[in-house]
Amino acid sequence: MRIQNKEYITIWLTADDELQIIDQTKLPAEFEIVTLKSNEDVCTAVSSMQVRGAGLIGVTAGYGVYLIAKNFSGQNNWLAYMQEECNKLLKTRPTAKNLSYALERQAKIWQNFAPKEALPKLREEALNLAQEDIDFCKRIGEHGKKLIEEIAKKKKGQPVNILTHCNAGWLAFTDYGSALSPVYTAFNAGIAVHVYVDETRPRNQGASLTAFELAEHNVPHTLISDNVGGHLMQHKMIDMVIVGADRVTRNGDVANKIGTYLKALAAHADHIPFYVALPSSTFDFSLFDGVKEIEIEERNARETEYITGYYYDNAGQKHVQEVRICPEKTKGLNFAFDVTPHTLITGLITERGIMQANENAILTLYPEAKQYCK
Amino acid sequence: MRIQNKEYITIWLTADDELQIIDQTKLPAEFEIVTLKSNEDVCTAVSSMQVRGAGLIGVTAGYGVYLIAKNFSGQNNWLAYMQEECNKLLKTRPTAKNLSYALERQAKIWQNFAPKEALPKLREEALNLAQEDIDFCKRIGEHGKKLIEEIAKKKKGQPVNILTHCNAGWLAFTDYGSALSPVYTAFNAGIAVHVYVDETRPRNQGASLTAFELAEHNVPHTLISDNVGGHLMQHKMIDMVIVGADRVTRNGDVANKIGTYLKALAAHADHIPFYVALPSSTFDFSLFDGVKEIEIEERNARETEYITGYYYDNAGQKHVQEVRICPEKTKGLNFAFDVTPHTLITGLITERGIMQANENAILTLYPEAKQYCK
Repeated sequence: MRIQNKEYITIWLTADDELQIIDQTKLPAEFEIVTLKSNEDVCTAVSSMQVRGAGLIGVTAGYGVYLIAKNFSGQNNWLAYMQEECNKLLKTRPTAKNLSYALERQAKIWQNFAPKEALPKLREEALNLAQEDIDFCKRIGEHGKKLIEEIAKKKKGQPVNILTHCNAGWLAFTDYGSALSPVYTAFNAGIAVHVYVDETRPRNQGASLTAFELAEHNVPHTLISDNVGGHLMQHKMIDMVIVGADRVTRNGDVANKIGTYLKALAAHADHIPFYVALPSSTFDFSLFDGVKEIEIEERNARETEYITGYYYDNAGQKHVQEVRICPEKTKGLNFAFDVTPHTLITGLITERGIMQANENAILTLYPEAKQYCK
Repeated sequence: MRIQNKEYITIWLTADDELQIIDQTKLPAEFEIVTLKSNEDVCTAVSSMQVRGAGLIGVTAGYGVYLIAKNFSGQNNWLAYMQEECNKLLKTRPTAKNLSYALERQAKIWQNFAPKEALPKLREEALNLAQEDIDFCKRIGEHGKKLIEEIAKKKKGQPVNILTHCNAGWLAFTDYGSALSPVYTAFNAGIAVHVYVDETRPRNQGASLTAFELAEHNVPHTLISDNVGGHLMQHKMIDMVIVGADRVTRNGDVANKIGTYLKALAAHADHIPFYVALPSSTFDFSLFDGVKEIEIEERNARETEYITGYYYDNAGQKHVQEVRICPEKTKGLNFAFDVTPHTLITGLITERGIMQANENAILTLYPEAKQYCK
């Protein structure tokens, strides 16, 4: 997708086989490309959220395993070395299913091949993971576009108002995105859309990333505080909600950015369609009851107590500044995700199509999940 | 209540009859007292939110009318002058019922007395309004404390976890507060309480004012992003919610800070008691259906696009800085309040007692509201 009218994806290998990413912690104030040279770099990139978003975390992990293998000195035990380094990667973020999915895909290679044979295969698999991510997101866009199109017909030229939470756009994947892929697909097809963007405290991925993406692609959008969505839905100012997901159970319960659950409650109360868009790598078919079974990541309280933005000094110089918003004596608590029960969800949009958020509907499109049923 | 171990109220007349306030836009970074000399000062103080909160807005308006009368030159027409200046005050904030309530109380004086007679009466009525505000808040605290006490008994020494949104503490009134008055009363009586404080974007009155109040009074509290409350309730980490109100209909629908509605939905979904604390001056008995009838203030989008906090430079110097959190191209939308339907509310805590949030229960405690029934 476009940044400053140039096409980018979020992660790539250069001609010199160097792994590069867009440093998303710098957006929207600065656009900076970073090279990751070691597994330590990759782990830091994931845990500090230079790369974030379910899809991109998975793809980064795929490339990370390739980088680990590339840096193998030959002096250690290959299997023990790979296992140890991959474990470090696994621990960087606990909620996103895509991370373990990518690691498992790569493990099938390094566990079964010697270093020299494994290396090109791991590179190829990392590229495959990225390409699958792109393909899946593109198909999510095509399926989801139909939902927007149906509403657009009823609105007769008035823009379709879509609320989204956090960033599940192309910056959260390799390209296109999950929740925003239908929006881009509809917009590119000439359908009038307008996106209400939740700022998504504490890290403000809505204000900094979703707004940035939409602005660069010229999609009409409005930033709102996370508190506003309920009021907008109550007054029918939202036609539909589309959010992404970090982990989805085979029952259709959805772990996504903290605050998603509150928007789902409001949508349900006012009969507004609430969709979750995800590539199948986000499913965790081994889980059933999301509220009970999904581990919720608790991040550093500092994210709650501080906020980062930018300002211009009197000389017109731009500065990025973190400011504290509460008294020194006050401490924060920072759960990063919550679980939206499937009963509040109108449907799931995946690369295979749109389905209701319940076990029967999911098993129909994903029969491979049946092995997990008790 | 205490700031730096000294007792304050939020607005007062000095020995020289000067009107002074705490500049709440500077908290928590700086504690600054400001003198209001003209109606223009008062209007600016209200509209810029140097004073804010339903009760304090009303009390400030009461003092404002006294100040207007005091500044009467004698050359204009008294009634026309007073009406014009009071209209300016009325327009500063549209949602809080307390503003028009105080203006109406004062109007009964200036409409019926000549300037010289009116002046001491307006001063006395302003002081009455402040004292009533204090008395009402104190009684709210006594009624509400019983609810906390009941939960405390069941928790056997474990702290009662109370979620609050925005600031309905003593800074929002003259003293004690509405939502926080039961908390202070319980805390002062030795009951173990712990308050989860919603930061309350966009203006962060929770992070800057509620956290400040509680910290200065040594009440255990934790700051959370507005997105977190749903998750906490889903996991039974909240025992009760208490919020304030800006306008309450005779049907029990509650206009309060934007985002209150989302917390009420979550409390309702998880069967957690959700109380609204208010002095009776916040009732608007002329209204019935809050969602349809209450006008919701739309404030400057800048509040959504920016956030203010403080930081220390390398020399250890404290700076207050406003930072932009979204791209330059992105615009915000800023509804300041929302309406929580009475069906989501467990009860209303007023100076007259605790009642269910419906017309019958309200009319029982407030028979004077019957005149508005159709």
